[in-house]
Amino acid sequence: MTDHHLSSDHIHTVWDNSLSPALTVRAGDLITLDTLDASDGGVARRVATGELEALPELVDVIAAGLRPARPGPRGHPLTGPVFVEGAEPGDALRIELLDVRAADWGWTGCRPDGIGLLDVALGAEGLKPYTHFWDLRAGAHTDFRPGIRLPLAPFPGVIGVAPGAAGPHPTSPPRQVGGNMDIRQLVKGAVLWLPVEVPGALLSAGDLHAAQGDGELSGTGIEMDGQLTLRVHVEKNAGITSPEFTTPTHGGSSRTWHVTTGHDPDLTTAARIALRALLRRLEARGLSLEQAYVLASACVDLKISQIVDAPNYTVSAFLPLDIFGG
Amino acid sequence: MTDHHLSSDHIHTVWDNSLSPALTVRAGDLITLDTLDASDGGVARRVATGELEALPELVDVIAAGLRPARPGPRGHPLTGPVFVEGAEPGDALRIELLDVRAADWGWTGCRPDGIGLLDVALGAEGLKPYTHFWDLRAGAHTDFRPGIRLPLAPFPGVIGVAPGAAGPHPTSPPRQVGGNMDIRQLVKGAVLWLPVEVPGALLSAGDLHAAQGDGELSGTGIEMDGQLTLRVHVEKNAGITSPEFTTPTHGGSSRTWHVTTGHDPDLTTAARIALRALLRRLEARGLSLEQAYVLASACVDLKISQIVDAPNYTVSAFLPLDIFGG
Repeated sequence: MTDHHLSSDHIHTVWDNSLSPALTVRAGDLITLDTLDASDGGVARRVATGELEALPELVDVIAAGLRPARPGPRGHPLTGPVFVEGAEPGDALRIELLDVRAADWGWTGCRPDGIGLLDVALGAEGLKPYTHFWDLRAGAHTDFRPGIRLPLAPFPGVIGVAPGAAGPHPTSPPRQVGGNMDIRQLVKGAVLWLPVEVPGALLSAGDLHAAQGDGELSGTGIEMDGQLTLRVHVEKNAGITSPEFTTPTHGGSSRTWHVTTGHDPDLTTAARIALRALLRRLEARGLSLEQAYVLASACVDLKISQIVDAPNYTVSAFLPLDIFGG
Repeated sequence: MTDHHLSSDHIHTVWDNSLSPALTVRAGDLITLDTLDASDGGVARRVATGELEALPELVDVIAAGLRPARPGPRGHPLTGPVFVEGAEPGDALRIELLDVRAADWGWTGCRPDGIGLLDVALGAEGLKPYTHFWDLRAGAHTDFRPGIRLPLAPFPGVIGVAPGAAGPHPTSPPRQVGGNMDIRQLVKGAVLWLPVEVPGALLSAGDLHAAQGDGELSGTGIEMDGQLTLRVHVEKNAGITSPEFTTPTHGGSSRTWHVTTGHDPDLTTAARIALRALLRRLEARGLSLEQAYVLASACVDLKISQIVDAPNYTVSAFLPLDIFGG
């Protein structure tokens, strides 16, 4: 097995299965990806020009990472794609999230034009554009202001493989192959399954968040540059039709969870997609459909992972694995 | 202050502000309510007639609590209403949930006719009517079958006050005055605020669940008879327009949360209602609207509390209170 490192020189800003791989790996290889923030350096440049006012203690830190604007299509800057040998349509890519490292600073913003859950009607109530800067150098936590401290739990906002459908696809909506899912439980220690639709899978990731609530209400988490270390595996004929994962975290709990996801413009439909996938997992443990359904009703939690990445919103169904003992 | 006990002889099955109070209390009084299961004894009667097959060890337990069918309108059997002296429209009723006691057995069911999240189309894939019986006598947990054990965390599926609008209202959909919210974090130790719309508030509760996942996927939690002990207070001009609560539990976490709720046929609208209420709470701590919004995006969790109580579904927004220290 080989260790690979892909720098942020290898960026694409649309999903497209005709992109040339930036890296080819074998199953079992370790991959470290340097990733860029969702604004592709734009927020930092606006600080440099004085358009946005950052915390004084962060100005030098921000300036140190300044980079020029990128020509070409706008979208989340994603590091990749990574071609995984042996991955074929119908397989699942199993991705161990071995480490997620935060940068020294991050930002969270809101705008009155409907990027977040508050609609334009509320903008008329006086919502102004606003950007908050966070000092992330303490590592485990960050202070919003004196007296308000958030724990950090970094994760990739975007992680996915190339869609089977030809042509460029925007990065904003997540899809059944993953992408901009903004699922905050995809932290270090999580294991993610993605359905493969093209040979080699073509894995990419980016848009790391230092922390975020379920929902990503204003349309942004704590946005930042970062670094992700993964190990990839191929599971043949895995029967996965939408992303699934296990995670050691859910609302601060120390239980471990198996999670299925649905991505759809309608949250009820997204929930139904996640539920059906979850029932398949329970049926695989020997339960009838009906037993699976009533057991799920008694113990499975629905979360709105994100309600802002139009046109697809994400509902995740969390099954606590400790109900099976051991 | 006085202690009151209301037996399950005092049941109503619709919300209606013209109902005569079963009990009148003062703010600060302790109230214990005996509550009946959502089927109003119907499931137990179907066991008695052999229509449903219960676990052998539960048959005698079920038989011990048999009661005749109730004439009149169908709906959740609610214990109440309780008239709280001094409560006026515009106030909030603050309810301390001091204890929630489970019965010895419970049931969870599914039907192919769309009462749950799986739709009729999936019924065509073979979903059958099914009722599972749970032995709750161990107290802290219940076994679904050998090797599958769920922790118990009993809560009232229905708790609310009378709507201001005249006439009978069905019990199934929750409303801005509460009702069938099916919020599983309303456990012992939670404190609930409900907006008062009529003099005396007219509080009722029932439909206790021994456990349930967020969403109540099949349309039923672990349904049971039970007993609820509350202390009620009146807050004048509280500015509450939809139920809010604090709770010591959220996904097994030991953090404490302030939670706002939205109830609407559209989950995105329900989420927006909950978000706006949450932003008001943050603004009350001295944050600007924009600061509140970006802070919420970084740390507030959206949960689908129930997605089955048509026509209104419930989204809850969870703010972790430990971010404020102390």
